[in-house]
Amino acid sequence: MKIDGKSTRTIWLAEDGQGVEIIDQTRLPHELVTVRLETLADAAHAIKAMLVRGAPLIGATAAYGMALTARANASDMALTVAYNILHATRPTAINLKWALDEMIKALAGVPEDKRAEVAYARAAEIADEDVAINSAIGDNGLDLLHDIWARRRAEGAERLNVLTHCNAGWLATVDWGTAIAPIYKAFDAGMPIHVWVDETRPRNQGASLTARELNWHGVPHTVIADNTGGHLMQHGMVDCVIVGTDRVTRNGDVCNKIGTYLKALAAADNNVPFYVALPSPTIDWSVADGVKEIPIEERDATEQTHMTGKAADGSIVTVQVVPDGSAAGNWGFDVTPARLVTGLITERGVCAASPEGLSELFPERG
Amino acid sequence: MKIDGKSTRTIWLAEDGQGVEIIDQTRLPHELVTVRLETLADAAHAIKAMLVRGAPLIGATAAYGMALTARANASDMALTVAYNILHATRPTAINLKWALDEMIKALAGVPEDKRAEVAYARAAEIADEDVAINSAIGDNGLDLLHDIWARRRAEGAERLNVLTHCNAGWLATVDWGTAIAPIYKAFDAGMPIHVWVDETRPRNQGASLTARELNWHGVPHTVIADNTGGHLMQHGMVDCVIVGTDRVTRNGDVCNKIGTYLKALAAADNNVPFYVALPSPTIDWSVADGVKEIPIEERDATEQTHMTGKAADGSIVTVQVVPDGSAAGNWGFDVTPARLVTGLITERGVCAASPEGLSELFPERG
Repeated sequence: MKIDGKSTRTIWLAEDGQGVEIIDQTRLPHELVTVRLETLADAAHAIKAMLVRGAPLIGATAAYGMALTARANASDMALTVAYNILHATRPTAINLKWALDEMIKALAGVPEDKRAEVAYARAAEIADEDVAINSAIGDNGLDLLHDIWARRRAEGAERLNVLTHCNAGWLATVDWGTAIAPIYKAFDAGMPIHVWVDETRPRNQGASLTARELNWHGVPHTVIADNTGGHLMQHGMVDCVIVGTDRVTRNGDVCNKIGTYLKALAAADNNVPFYVALPSPTIDWSVADGVKEIPIEERDATEQTHMTGKAADGSIVTVQVVPDGSAAGNWGFDVTPARLVTGLITERGVCAASPEGLSELFPERG
Repeated sequence: MKIDGKSTRTIWLAEDGQGVEIIDQTRLPHELVTVRLETLADAAHAIKAMLVRGAPLIGATAAYGMALTARANASDMALTVAYNILHATRPTAINLKWALDEMIKALAGVPEDKRAEVAYARAAEIADEDVAINSAIGDNGLDLLHDIWARRRAEGAERLNVLTHCNAGWLATVDWGTAIAPIYKAFDAGMPIHVWVDETRPRNQGASLTARELNWHGVPHTVIADNTGGHLMQHGMVDCVIVGTDRVTRNGDVCNKIGTYLKALAAADNNVPFYVALPSPTIDWSVADGVKEIPIEERDATEQTHMTGKAADGSIVTVQVVPDGSAAGNWGFDVTPARLVTGLITERGVCAASPEGLSELFPERG
């Protein structure tokens, strides 16, 4: 998407065709810093230290890490070492392993002196495939937004209000994003869209990343406390909710950033449509009941007790917001039962959040 | 309640019987600073600059402001000026006007040379009456907690988990608090109670004030993001919710800090009892439908875009957490419909959140 008018991705090949450039997301939202990756070690560090985050972007970075390796040393031994190093950076990230396996497949049987070229080409494809999937999600979500806006406009509304939680925008992918892709498509098509951005405590991905990228692209938005959405829905100020997800079960239960469930409850209580946008690999066909079966990660309590921001002098400072001696708890995700989800927006189309809905859209898995 | 073992109120007469002492709540949670009020101007400043906050504490401070006035100049003119100055500090605070009117009533017909004595005595009574009301709320809530704990203990639970939102503890009153009073009573009675403290963005009254006072008194507690309660309830980790309120309608709708409604939805979805604790003057008999009739204050957006805490060097620093150029919205309260409220805990007893329930407990208003 655009940064101050210039089309940008989260990862791209440098002009010399050798290095790979990324946005250092640890410096957001207050600083925009581009980092050049030259080596396997650079790529591994970028993933491990979370300069890049979001499953698709991690996958693309790992793929380019293999290409950077092949440029320096394309031997089987070097590529195997690179695979292991990159895989160990964030071992639970499913896209990471998938991308690494794709690279190994692409390089199988290729003579050593051709491997770098093949690796760069396959890494670029992996990045482009992510862009295409997210663009398709955007198009499918846009159809829904057109329908909602047509109805709201007929009722006299002056803008379409969409609420989102956490960051499921282009900064979490290579481009477009998932939940935010339909919003960019609507904005680019001239729809008067406005986004309520949940702050998303404790890591503030909404206030920092979602606000940052909407701001760059020029999409009108308002950051709100996570506490606010219910009140807005009670007063007709939210026309639709769209969120991303980390995992959807075959029953349609949705695991996403902590607090998503509360917004889904409020949406149901106020007849506001609640959509979840996802690329189909996010569906975990091995799990049925998300509340019972998905283990929820407990994260470092300092994410809750401390907050980082920009001080008056422009320096980046971390402050403690909980008194000394008070314990803090930090659960990363929650599960929204399928009964609260109006529909799942995928690259193939939109379906009901149910075994039947998913089977219809993915008959090969049904 | 106790600060490091010593019983403390939020306002008290100084040892010399002349000055009035308060805790400067703007310095919490990281610093405990006591301020001595000597004059009308001191009392007015304490209310206006929010050194004291919470309706009952504001009322008590205003009452003592009249006593401080009478000590210096007990003429009708001086008292009238004091009334007007104190009333203007926070004109929408109902308790403030009530306390000032009580002082005027007490002083009516009293000769000038006796007025200071009468004023100090009436101010002390106003403070003590608040303590008595909150203690009664605590006793009535304690009965509920005993019942819930008896059931949970029979099921093998090792502790009783209560979730609360915002600060309705002793720091918002003269002592005990409203929602937290039953928790203190249960803790003091030896019940193994643990409190989930909602951070309560954007002003963080939970993370700062509620955590601070539970910490001082020794009550086990854990600060969580406002996003977390739904997940905890889905997994049986919350036995009961108790919150305070700013206004309850005659239908039983509850206006309280923004985000209360979301917790009430989650409680209803998971069969967790949801109680609201209040002194009876909080009931607004003139309003029926809270969602439709109660206007919700929009506050300064900087409360959302900035956050204050303790930096690594111990200094108190305010940092910006939203990128430059992003708008922020800040609604202070929401309304929880009566259908989501299990019961109202008042100084007279517990009743259903309904016209019938309220009429039964307050037949003089029915």
